[in-house]
Amino acid sequence: MLDTLKERVCRANLELLSLGLVTLTWGNASGIDRQRGLVAIKPSGVRYDELSAEQMMVVDLDGRIVEGNKRPSSDMPTHLCLYRHFSAIGGVVHTHSRRATMFAQARREIPCLGTTHADHFRGPVPITRSLSEEEVDEDYEGHTGGVIVERFADLDPATMPAVLVPGHAPFAWGRDVSEAVQNAAALEAVAEMALGTRLIDAQAAELEPYLLEKHFLRKHGPAAYYGQG
Amino acid sequence: MLDTLKERVCRANLELLSLGLVTLTWGNASGIDRQRGLVAIKPSGVRYDELSAEQMMVVDLDGRIVEGNKRPSSDMPTHLCLYRHFSAIGGVVHTHSRRATMFAQARREIPCLGTTHADHFRGPVPITRSLSEEEVDEDYEGHTGGVIVERFADLDPATMPAVLVPGHAPFAWGRDVSEAVQNAAALEAVAEMALGTRLIDAQAAELEPYLLEKHFLRKHGPAAYYGQG
Amino acid sequence: MLDTLKERVCRANLELLSLGLVTLTWGNASGIDRQRGLVAIKPSGVRYDELSAEQMMVVDLDGRIVEGNKRPSSDMPTHLCLYRHFSAIGGVVHTHSRRATMFAQARREIPCLGTTHADHFRGPVPITRSLSEEEVDEDYEGHTGGVIVERFADLDPATMPAVLVPGHAPFAWGRDVSEAVQNAAALEAVAEMALGTRLIDAQAAELEPYLLEKHFLRKHGPAAYYGQG
Amino acid sequence: MLDTLKERVCRANLELLSLGLVTLTWGNASGIDRQRGLVAIKPSGVRYDELSAEQMMVVDLDGRIVEGNKRPSSDMPTHLCLYRHFSAIGGVVHTHSRRATMFAQARREIPCLGTTHADHFRGPVPITRSLSEEEVDEDYEGHTGGVIVERFADLDPATMPAVLVPGHAPFAWGRDVSEAVQNAAALEAVAEMALGTRLIDAQAAELEPYLLEKHFLRKHGPAAYYGQG
Repeated sequence: MLDTLKERVCRANLELLSLGLVTLTWGNASGIDRQRGLVAIKPSGVRYDELSAEQMMVVDLDGRIVEGNKRPSSDMPTHLCLYRHFSAIGGVVHTHSRRATMFAQARREIPCLGTTHADHFRGPVPITRSLSEEEVDEDYEGHTGGVIVERFADLDPATMPAVLVPGHAPFAWGRDVSEAVQNAAALEAVAEMALGTRLIDAQAAELEPYLLEKHFLRKHGPAAYYGQG
Repeated sequence: MLDTLKERVCRANLELLSLGLVTLTWGNASGIDRQRGLVAIKPSGVRYDELSAEQMMVVDLDGRIVEGNKRPSSDMPTHLCLYRHFSAIGGVVHTHSRRATMFAQARREIPCLGTTHADHFRGPVPITRSLSEEEVDEDYEGHTGGVIVERFADLDPATMPAVLVPGHAPFAWGRDVSEAVQNAAALEAVAEMALGTRLIDAQAAELEPYLLEKHFLRKHGPAAYYGQG
Repeated sequence: MLDTLKERVCRANLELLSLGLVTLTWGNASGIDRQRGLVAIKPSGVRYDELSAEQMMVVDLDGRIVEGNKRPSSDMPTHLCLYRHFSAIGGVVHTHSRRATMFAQARREIPCLGTTHADHFRGPVPITRSLSEEEVDEDYEGHTGGVIVERFADLDPATMPAVLVPGHAPFAWGRDVSEAVQNAAALEAVAEMALGTRLIDAQAAELEPYLLEKHFLRKHGPAAYYGQG
Repeated sequence: MLDTLKERVCRANLELLSLGLVTLTWGNASGIDRQRGLVAIKPSGVRYDELSAEQMMVVDLDGRIVEGNKRPSSDMPTHLCLYRHFSAIGGVVHTHSRRATMFAQARREIPCLGTTHADHFRGPVPITRSLSEEEVDEDYEGHTGGVIVERFADLDPATMPAVLVPGHAPFAWGRDVSEAVQNAAALEAVAEMALGTRLIDAQAAELEPYLLEKHFLRKHGPAAYYGQG
């Protein structure tokens, strides 16, 4: 069942490792089959060198296990919340990639300082509000999704495919799980470069809005001319 | 004798290398067989590319060689001191991993700035007091273990599986040698992220205590729900 | 057609990856056959693990496709502008390599702080002026080449084989595409070392002019004595 | 002739690459046969992936080529100067390894902030004076050796096996070329950790002299007890 999706989700999880975005078992990727309303997601805490497509868990949008004999990723409720509210996304990735996590820990958005950023994110990468003690105590992972959705009240997940959760780490997404991985990799790169840029000049200015728009739109949307179309 | 343990300890030493935690020969891992009271430990100063399970030294808790024809790691007395005083641990790892060592050299504990930290360490990673000239002159490695034990008078090694020795480097441990390696890798990652976080914001706040507890307890203890149980 | 050049350009693109200068698909290399006035360049947005010599696009100096069935790199107009104005260059490389890009984002030239820099670049690596909104709106990539040429009014591309575009990233070149790759790698290294040097001492002085000249000229020009001649 | 030495010197040069100490062709290692007064050294500017033992150049202590048909490393006069004045050394390594070079460019010695440093270097790693314009103009590489020797007037090359040349990069040495490589790797590690330590605390104190001595002497000299003796 969902063999192709499980294969893609497994490969995406392994790509997180080869791209240097995960340490030990700290990361998970999922993909959704919108027609059936089913999500394939990495099992919790499994070593990457033992991961196979058959191990991917299949769950419905309420988190009921449909296929698989392991425990799904403990971050599953966050993934499901994003799928329920962001109808255009097909894949979600969560990592503790080091530089993006530094910004999450510093509780700062990632400013848009260059075109690499603008190629992927249409503006500063936002950060959610902190969770209250009550939210952490009951349904922590669900509420993590909730504050992301809350933060996106006036943002478009299609043009801003990542977010930071303060004191925690980033989540990224895309039209499919492969694009979600690429956005997670882009996020890590722009976080590293934003940190370094501000070490060179603490006052380094944000990118001109017209240059930001130019770069985002040459890669995304109807007038895009980057890539093979 | 102790073939399985020696095999595991050898593999753990090699994992330190593949995880990027050691340079040249600067690191050592050991594991204990509590029933027999015997410890398998890496020989001193041997190149990682020549390491094999047969070379692991077996010693008793007083440091007497029981098996093997090499000199055991010069840090052996520190390992043994930890095994004697922390009865629940089964493996010890010592590295000079770069970011954790930076904090040891700066003589600062590693503050808990995020959930990656809280997933592994229930609070700031502590630092011991400095050794006196007398302690260094007689039984240096034994006293290194002693100041760690002293620092843990009011800490639980089961929930704080690492420590920094000032001007020196970290030690980490776990229920077995494989968990000790994972804790050493987690320590390096959280040290790197703490350093970067404070470069972004020198005043970055420590994690909310309720979030720290939540993350530690979702991975550890009776109510844990991370991993495959 | 141009099989050897396409082979070299393909290999150069792959070298960018193995040298750690590109993430995902963010980079492109091209080479020119001056006799025929034809340029071989990477297709746009193609994954490096799927790249082959046959895929290289061949275009003339006005950007007309002469061979190949893909879209050429979106940065092609910048490459072509450089080939038209810098008659001695045979290869061009564009990357978003992280440390060079940090300087571009901080909108600072890279000061010459050591002999590694002087071995490759005869003075600080310059930065162009910013593009105006009009320049970005019409023929963005062409104008990017234009501001580079403008910046080199009193610089020699043969002795200064790289430039930073503010808010964007570096371009590098060389007598052939292989030398362009080496200059891109040198640029990244000197950017990293300049950043680190100024972290150690924010006032670190630039290299003595006589040492700069000595190092540049022992590797370049008629009296060079580095390498196999 | 000198086949074993050439083999060792070749392997040492390749180890510089695998240890991450060189970029492109920026590094060279040599070894001496003291009985014959002959030195095997890397040829100048040759790619590491084309290096073989047969290519190693053999020269006498005055730089006359005894065997080989390439140009020896342009830094050869510095190597030879060190061999002539430091009679106990058997190998020399020159790299532009990034963190050690940052200190050379900042024109600062590397302070001894921890036991990793003390395990290899008995005190701060010194920096030479700058070369004058005259010294650079005539016999630059020979004078580079000269200022190193001058700096070591009151230092022992056996206990301080590395030095920084301001605005340039480090040199390291050892009893043989393999130990020289290890010292170059240790130097890079302690430079990285010194930089990071001072980022955490700009006032971080140097290691207690008694701890420095303890660590140096447990690895070196008659009472050493690290390694297999």
